[in-house]
Amino acid sequence: MTLLNANYLNLQGSYLFAEIARRTAAYKTAHPNHQVISLGIGDVSRPLVPAVVDALKKACEEMGHAETFRGYGPYEGYDFLRQAIAQNDYQARHIDIAADEIFVSDGAKSDVANFQELFSAEARVALQDPVYPVYLDTNVMAGRSGVCQNGQFEKIIYLPCTAENNFSPDVPKEYADIVYLCSPNNPTGSVLTHSQLQKWVEWALEHKAIILFDSAYEAFIRNQNLPHSIFEIPGAKKCAVEFRSFSKTAGFTGTRCAYCVVPRELMLYDEMGTAHAVRDVWLRRQSTKFNGVPYIVQRGAEAVFSKEGKMQTRQVIDGYLENARMIRQAVQAAGLKAYGGENAPYIWIQTPGAMTSWEFFDMMLNELEIVGTPGAGFGLSGEGYFRLTAFNTPQLTQTAALRLKKIK
Amino acid sequence: MTLLNANYLNLQGSYLFAEIARRTAAYKTAHPNHQVISLGIGDVSRPLVPAVVDALKKACEEMGHAETFRGYGPYEGYDFLRQAIAQNDYQARHIDIAADEIFVSDGAKSDVANFQELFSAEARVALQDPVYPVYLDTNVMAGRSGVCQNGQFEKIIYLPCTAENNFSPDVPKEYADIVYLCSPNNPTGSVLTHSQLQKWVEWALEHKAIILFDSAYEAFIRNQNLPHSIFEIPGAKKCAVEFRSFSKTAGFTGTRCAYCVVPRELMLYDEMGTAHAVRDVWLRRQSTKFNGVPYIVQRGAEAVFSKEGKMQTRQVIDGYLENARMIRQAVQAAGLKAYGGENAPYIWIQTPGAMTSWEFFDMMLNELEIVGTPGAGFGLSGEGYFRLTAFNTPQLTQTAALRLKKIK
Repeated sequence: MTLLNANYLNLQGSYLFAEIARRTAAYKTAHPNHQVISLGIGDVSRPLVPAVVDALKKACEEMGHAETFRGYGPYEGYDFLRQAIAQNDYQARHIDIAADEIFVSDGAKSDVANFQELFSAEARVALQDPVYPVYLDTNVMAGRSGVCQNGQFEKIIYLPCTAENNFSPDVPKEYADIVYLCSPNNPTGSVLTHSQLQKWVEWALEHKAIILFDSAYEAFIRNQNLPHSIFEIPGAKKCAVEFRSFSKTAGFTGTRCAYCVVPRELMLYDEMGTAHAVRDVWLRRQSTKFNGVPYIVQRGAEAVFSKEGKMQTRQVIDGYLENARMIRQAVQAAGLKAYGGENAPYIWIQTPGAMTSWEFFDMMLNELEIVGTPGAGFGLSGEGYFRLTAFNTPQLTQTAALRLKKIK
Repeated sequence: MTLLNANYLNLQGSYLFAEIARRTAAYKTAHPNHQVISLGIGDVSRPLVPAVVDALKKACEEMGHAETFRGYGPYEGYDFLRQAIAQNDYQARHIDIAADEIFVSDGAKSDVANFQELFSAEARVALQDPVYPVYLDTNVMAGRSGVCQNGQFEKIIYLPCTAENNFSPDVPKEYADIVYLCSPNNPTGSVLTHSQLQKWVEWALEHKAIILFDSAYEAFIRNQNLPHSIFEIPGAKKCAVEFRSFSKTAGFTGTRCAYCVVPRELMLYDEMGTAHAVRDVWLRRQSTKFNGVPYIVQRGAEAVFSKEGKMQTRQVIDGYLENARMIRQAVQAAGLKAYGGENAPYIWIQTPGAMTSWEFFDMMLNELEIVGTPGAGFGLSGEGYFRLTAFNTPQLTQTAALRLKKIK
């Protein structure tokens, strides 16, 4: 009798989006002619830019001819793309990252989910709370969580991020081996500053801990003083891995391309104290379990860094940021506290009075016909908050903003 | 100090292809004007067929317009592709598999590598020997192997496949929870018959074991009496998962699309004896760690099942099979025993006399200027064998065949 991986039994059901869908569907059935607007989606709505579409099509044509056909590519990604990433996302910003420290993949979600495989099953994990659920669930599956009691897992170290600490988590008091940090943050929309990140890097270096830094939304940063990469912090190459994606930067949610940066200096240790380069261990993992990203898609991603590609994708993100501005302004005009939305596509609203995040959800749906995401769905510290996203069309976002001003 | 997953320390270095490359490069350096032909590659050489290229380009164009743009797709794959697979690869052959039992992915390698995550860390694993290394390495990484001694891992059950048993493994004498079967086989080129598979299904049902059936090369089967799918065997839906790929079927090695079939009836058990549908557990795994295959690529894969697509891809495979026939005939003309190559792209040669597979490699390289793969690289039972592949061009394969006839 083949036994199930018992860790899966510890997973908590993901009722959040199912419950949102259920309540929304019930409302729509009761009000068939009303226009319910979703500001809950985390997916992009604008098409791929022309520079990317042209590059994709050209690559498809190449695949149809023996002379230009490509079979298996390098596990780490084609050199043309790794070079483009290193030059544009790092070296052009005076960050010393080389192409051979970049690993191309099919998604930041896959990378973030798979990276924990390199660590001991006993490693202690610290997470921001509220949090993107993938960090937690993949560690539950790997047996690092213990059981869940009252909404939290016994072995996970939760780092509350609330208005009280300006959504910037404090370094843990207990020892942790691995810390997941997300900046710009999903769901709070906050961005860690240089000095906040500096504190984390110092902590990690002191404890020989590893920071898994998710900056999937870095392209939304417009404030010149905020860091785009953890590798802007001295010492970070000895303690951090960075995850990036073309999903939100260039609308690749359905095209699938991302990358992670694993600096040569980053080490893991075996029980004898011998150091192992994380870069080599990750390459072993990827070459054993993954066969690379489609050649066509890598050519599309390369085009994001062309002159036209840069200009066109920046315009798309400017459009989403304008949506974010409209939402934020409307919510503030209604007298509510709103965070994020300036360097991130997420606006994090404090619910008024003692209203829970699900009560706020029901009020928004029933009175304003707007769907968002209750903060409690992202963790205990998300209670009392509510997430809106900037990814809908400008027209519907504008209509939604007019309604939001009427929040009582 | 963050500790490495200690199981990685048990991995054996993969020196096979590196050593082949080293010896080949040395020969080429010493003989700069000679033509060395590789019959060692496992990658395809022919371009994508026109039906697929057209579908890919059309999908790229769709991605450039808001009305037809696609963001995140379903984790399991788009319904249009799952329906096409269910209808063409199963229902048209009177095999009762439904679209909702099919999970689209970026590669059979990824699926085969990831599926073991669903099982207990204590599960006993049985493997054919010789074997595709991914089955073994991923179980080593997961801690199911124990340590390696004299070329074999202490906890792995090896099922020898040699000329003595006609490359058809016997069911294990010891208890096993999971068995990996590959048919048509890489590297031996042999195909399991209905009655051989029947024996395996009966064994698995009796022990509530699970068969992971890799049929990535099924499109090469031309013998009408050989099964393409394990689900042609009654009862298999209660004990097997099947892995298929567009890589070798349609030249997708650099385009990345595959699928696995997880029947609704297939169960795993927890320690209380409660049954869990593997299909649900796999969906939970995929939705947590994976975000689907590019929309563009799924449209390309769908086109493999169009009338033109079927005709065009069959012609490509016929071409590879003609290569295989030439190689096989030439080797046999030289008086050697050759297996496979009739319903598979691999020809498995018995080395003459007491020659080891690496000695045969050196003879082939130095005397015939042909590169192949020593059987010992695939496991202890591969010693005394040598793999040639049918994936080179017809012209070079023909030249190689003329040389092969001169084997002494």
